[in-house]
Amino acid sequence: MENPSFVLRAVKDVAIEDRPKPQLQDPHDVIVHVAQTGICGSDVHYWQRGRIGDYILTGPMVLGHESSGIIAEVGSKVTHLKPGDRVAMEPGVPCRRCDYCRKGSYHLCGDMIFAATPPWDGTLAKYYVNAADFCYRVPDHMNLEEAAMVEPVSVAVAIAKTADLRAHQTVLVLGCGPIGVLCQAVAKAHGAKTVIGVDVVESRLEVARSYGVDHTFMPPRAEPGADPIAHAERVAEMLNDEFELGDGVDVVLECSGAEPCVQLGIFAAKRGATFVQAGMGKETISFPITAVCTRGLVLKGSIRYLTGCYPAAIDLIASGQIDVKRLVTNRFKFEQAEEAFELVKAGRQDVFKVMIAGVK
Amino acid sequence: MENPSFVLRAVKDVAIEDRPKPQLQDPHDVIVHVAQTGICGSDVHYWQRGRIGDYILTGPMVLGHESSGIIAEVGSKVTHLKPGDRVAMEPGVPCRRCDYCRKGSYHLCGDMIFAATPPWDGTLAKYYVNAADFCYRVPDHMNLEEAAMVEPVSVAVAIAKTADLRAHQTVLVLGCGPIGVLCQAVAKAHGAKTVIGVDVVESRLEVARSYGVDHTFMPPRAEPGADPIAHAERVAEMLNDEFELGDGVDVVLECSGAEPCVQLGIFAAKRGATFVQAGMGKETISFPITAVCTRGLVLKGSIRYLTGCYPAAIDLIASGQIDVKRLVTNRFKFEQAEEAFELVKAGRQDVFKVMIAGVK
Amino acid sequence: MENPSFVLRAVKDVAIEDRPKPQLQDPHDVIVHVAQTGICGSDVHYWQRGRIGDYILTGPMVLGHESSGIIAEVGSKVTHLKPGDRVAMEPGVPCRRCDYCRKGSYHLCGDMIFAATPPWDGTLAKYYVNAADFCYRVPDHMNLEEAAMVEPVSVAVAIAKTADLRAHQTVLVLGCGPIGVLCQAVAKAHGAKTVIGVDVVESRLEVARSYGVDHTFMPPRAEPGADPIAHAERVAEMLNDEFELGDGVDVVLECSGAEPCVQLGIFAAKRGATFVQAGMGKETISFPITAVCTRGLVLKGSIRYLTGCYPAAIDLIASGQIDVKRLVTNRFKFEQAEEAFELVKAGRQDVFKVMIAGVK
Amino acid sequence: MENPSFVLRAVKDVAIEDRPKPQLQDPHDVIVHVAQTGICGSDVHYWQRGRIGDYILTGPMVLGHESSGIIAEVGSKVTHLKPGDRVAMEPGVPCRRCDYCRKGSYHLCGDMIFAATPPWDGTLAKYYVNAADFCYRVPDHMNLEEAAMVEPVSVAVAIAKTADLRAHQTVLVLGCGPIGVLCQAVAKAHGAKTVIGVDVVESRLEVARSYGVDHTFMPPRAEPGADPIAHAERVAEMLNDEFELGDGVDVVLECSGAEPCVQLGIFAAKRGATFVQAGMGKETISFPITAVCTRGLVLKGSIRYLTGCYPAAIDLIASGQIDVKRLVTNRFKFEQAEEAFELVKAGRQDVFKVMIAGVK
Repeated sequence: MENPSFVLRAVKDVAIEDRPKPQLQDPHDVIVHVAQTGICGSDVHYWQRGRIGDYILTGPMVLGHESSGIIAEVGSKVTHLKPGDRVAMEPGVPCRRCDYCRKGSYHLCGDMIFAATPPWDGTLAKYYVNAADFCYRVPDHMNLEEAAMVEPVSVAVAIAKTADLRAHQTVLVLGCGPIGVLCQAVAKAHGAKTVIGVDVVESRLEVARSYGVDHTFMPPRAEPGADPIAHAERVAEMLNDEFELGDGVDVVLECSGAEPCVQLGIFAAKRGATFVQAGMGKETISFPITAVCTRGLVLKGSIRYLTGCYPAAIDLIASGQIDVKRLVTNRFKFEQAEEAFELVKAGRQDVFKVMIAGVK
Repeated sequence: MENPSFVLRAVKDVAIEDRPKPQLQDPHDVIVHVAQTGICGSDVHYWQRGRIGDYILTGPMVLGHESSGIIAEVGSKVTHLKPGDRVAMEPGVPCRRCDYCRKGSYHLCGDMIFAATPPWDGTLAKYYVNAADFCYRVPDHMNLEEAAMVEPVSVAVAIAKTADLRAHQTVLVLGCGPIGVLCQAVAKAHGAKTVIGVDVVESRLEVARSYGVDHTFMPPRAEPGADPIAHAERVAEMLNDEFELGDGVDVVLECSGAEPCVQLGIFAAKRGATFVQAGMGKETISFPITAVCTRGLVLKGSIRYLTGCYPAAIDLIASGQIDVKRLVTNRFKFEQAEEAFELVKAGRQDVFKVMIAGVK
Repeated sequence: MENPSFVLRAVKDVAIEDRPKPQLQDPHDVIVHVAQTGICGSDVHYWQRGRIGDYILTGPMVLGHESSGIIAEVGSKVTHLKPGDRVAMEPGVPCRRCDYCRKGSYHLCGDMIFAATPPWDGTLAKYYVNAADFCYRVPDHMNLEEAAMVEPVSVAVAIAKTADLRAHQTVLVLGCGPIGVLCQAVAKAHGAKTVIGVDVVESRLEVARSYGVDHTFMPPRAEPGADPIAHAERVAEMLNDEFELGDGVDVVLECSGAEPCVQLGIFAAKRGATFVQAGMGKETISFPITAVCTRGLVLKGSIRYLTGCYPAAIDLIASGQIDVKRLVTNRFKFEQAEEAFELVKAGRQDVFKVMIAGVK
Repeated sequence: MENPSFVLRAVKDVAIEDRPKPQLQDPHDVIVHVAQTGICGSDVHYWQRGRIGDYILTGPMVLGHESSGIIAEVGSKVTHLKPGDRVAMEPGVPCRRCDYCRKGSYHLCGDMIFAATPPWDGTLAKYYVNAADFCYRVPDHMNLEEAAMVEPVSVAVAIAKTADLRAHQTVLVLGCGPIGVLCQAVAKAHGAKTVIGVDVVESRLEVARSYGVDHTFMPPRAEPGADPIAHAERVAEMLNDEFELGDGVDVVLECSGAEPCVQLGIFAAKRGATFVQAGMGKETISFPITAVCTRGLVLKGSIRYLTGCYPAAIDLIASGQIDVKRLVTNRFKFEQAEEAFELVKAGRQDVFKVMIAGVK
């Protein structure tokens, strides 16, 4: 095959197909020979449901967007990359011309071409064309699996930037999946005083502890029929008491998308605190809006990556501040891509990040 | 009587009582002879229900906190005021020593003494003791009714500051009661490009128009059984279409506290926009949290006043940029205070701000 | 002639030459039929000296960069403009790919193509190619002379943005040339409480007063042999005394580039104030660095325009908040371009902005 | 003696005198039994010259302001401290009532009572009265010499805060004295990518290296008669070349106060960079103001400490992130105070921080 590609043909219908090898058109683009691709929850979501919010599958689409690779060809105006360079790929290229792009908020660009977001093909193929400035060379001592992990680390860096995380803060991270754990590691690397990881699964709390979190906390479930808001207030008090947090935490990073976690986070935040919503679950929830008001909270949504997140993530991995290798729990060959997706879909607690190797 | 005071003795039980005239204790304090006091929704709330959130009436409390007056006595260390000076009074004095106070967020101080917030007595008395630096001299050409209106204007200025309002923005204000209309006027005075006022009462939209709002909008009610979130999305589209807002507005100031308004505001906000929640209604609402995330919104709660709001509000009134006199629709003598409260409680659409004159 | 152009052939050597009419190459570009062009000090500087800082004339270059025009042709991907549209042109197009561009600081892009900055040709020609997103349609009621004036107004808006100008501030503007006066007008439009204009030429102070400045001030010259720093401190005290500024002003906008003005500005600033350096004069000056330190000042350089400045400037002119027509004191035909340049070079105090009409 | 105190009686005239033991007056104050006091350059400056800027010695004044101690007595309203508590003392107590204090900039308060700044007595005495909220309890494992070192670490934290230091930045620190080295350590603890220390003394660069700086650089001296600005530009280029800094560094922290360092820093800064002036030397210098403008730099003065610096500094020492013990090179008994001052005055390169023990 010229360019084997893992294609979502329709909901719940994937197959490896041959696609034409992409050609360079824009002189600022490069062709990347894809090396490693991590699977993300959103890939599985499109596979199983065919849509995320306003993005709806309308035709066959190659999956995958967390990839590293080796530069195969460069456009005539590319100066900082050459064939053979090993790169981490930022998977969303904005229009560069709208107001969002021009003011530095390219993650909000309405015309972004984002890998594996309908109608744009993803990176689970032998070759992928990307804008050269969205490919970042990685140091020699970083392998291509680590380079693929730059994507989730960048997500965590973007969450930290959105929270305007500063040294010496007390940071509560809700959810200890890959993004939650990486947020905890980023917070520690940025000089946080105290980082607390919250999850309802003990094995995830163990992973969090191994990543340097100061405390972990498993919130009790609400009793049947209990008012969820009153429950959230009580759990927040338990948290404050157990870790002597005074008025509450300086920053909340919500990485679970679970309704009770969002509610807990609002009450665990001290007055004037920043709360970043990064996890996505139910689209609409029961929400204590008056507490946001009386406590003077700042609630910010985080989506994708901001300028500088990819270089920062590479730095965190390359310098040894975050060990991403331990998060990769399962590895598959390209031909086993569907098997890899099935594993992620199963949602086993011991599965953190699943990696698919590229086609040689 | 030495110091006639309008006392909330218990829920729904008010009376004018004599209280001892206050004495100066702290050398930085002043005694103010109260001149005019506006009635606020929170005063009526305590009267009718005895509590707002965590603040619960536990004993008799003087009502009122939107007051102006004339300096009667000054403490030994007060240098910028003298007896006879006419002042607007900021009704909350913080501890000045906690972390919130020391970092400039005194509105979040947990030990604030706030007039007519249990257990602290309010300003509806002949005399009131206040910290000198929370009394602001008003210009000679501003009368004492206008000086009492500095309080609601300061609330609007604080909302604008919380929103980090800039010139040339498109601003949506939800609710056209006194605070909503004042927010609209403040936004125009700060150079907003377009200000849109929203309310479900036509007469309030008329007031908004008379205060210089660029557009007004009366949202259609949802049909019975309709999904409120889908309805909010539809109304936001109507708004965008009618006023050619493109992706939406730059800033949303929610001054109604009404659940459908909060929901509308989230969908009317452009990506990356700022949404300030200032209105207080139901404590918990159905809330489109995923939209906050995917749109990269910033949602901030606004409460009370920030440093500099009182001087700014005085400036806006004194310079003629905001005419507050037209907002005062009803005037009462001190002896008629209960009647004034009854009028506010009735919630008539033609009643904006009710003012009670002080005891001579 | 196909495309008459006003060319700086070498230092002090200008001529109208014919140049080939530009062709569309990038599908996002447009060709503009230039209508009006204002002359800027930098144009004259290149003419007389052949260099500004690191930018050095190395070959013939068309002059001019403050232009309006009518769209003649549009590239295939341009959707928001069509032939016949009347536009103001932002004269610097950045690379869109470097870190500066991607983080929203495109004015700092090292690969910017800026009209009439060597080696890039300027706009004093019949036709000019520009990126479509750097051409801004102006309202029907704004004429093309006003549209050319959008450039200096944008410079003033950028200075105000750099200063993070807020409502209710006291703003000192040093220099009452076109940029200084426009900064004063922008500050008032943004809700400044008090704006003070400073110049050593009475007629310029008169213009400032006609643009709504609250106070004007002509600083006394230092006596021969006086220490310039001590003189600056004394003048700052005079300023404070005359206008009752207390500790000093909140914001200083330095638009003169004159050494004594920079020094005065530092001492006129209150503790923690913001000082924006926009004027360019002597490259190195005698500077009270310790005062910056002990007063906790913030000194920022302003150069060119930031995202959103052009639309804001159009809004200020279109809404009547700033009347730019009165600043245009002299008008020339294209054939008289050299005469127009001579007039600006002469530096007469009654000459504010000189405008050259385009070729029909 | 009741309260032995090290008094500056006049310029160059110091002596240990007995002073009355201070009494508690404000119920929020505490009396501290002073344990350790570091000597600062400003103490020596007052001793030798009797003034710093506007602060002029007008009568006898106790010296010293970098102190730790043990709580001896607490006022009636003090709740978070009790006799026997070991504390680091922040030596400047603001008025809490002016605009600076109320907006969170208490370090700019014009009525601050700052130890050993005329006319206020310092901490080199047996007992010192301080506001309770400006005394910070230190953990049991931190000794009182480390607690005295909280002061210079707080200065470094304040410089970092003023610079708005973020993770992943390249930071140039000019000067490797105690404050410079501590700034370097703070930058690393806050996640800086690369920190470069600059000094003209090799032994200081060695200390910097031992504190985790990534690179050190000794700038060549200008040749006699060379233009200092051109020299600064050349050295900046050398620096960029040697450490592959591209356009320059993200942040410059100027901790030397030396004119050539300030000049070097301006040219070493990348476009849009932040430059913090913390060192104080000559009050007026030759300064490349146009470079600030064309490079869009932000230059900020840093003075004293901001809210939260003391707790952050204690955290950095207590957690082992900064080892301050190695900076204390010389120790003296209280009776040897003058000898200690003589040592600091001598300016030997191997003397970093000199500590004077308190009276038992």
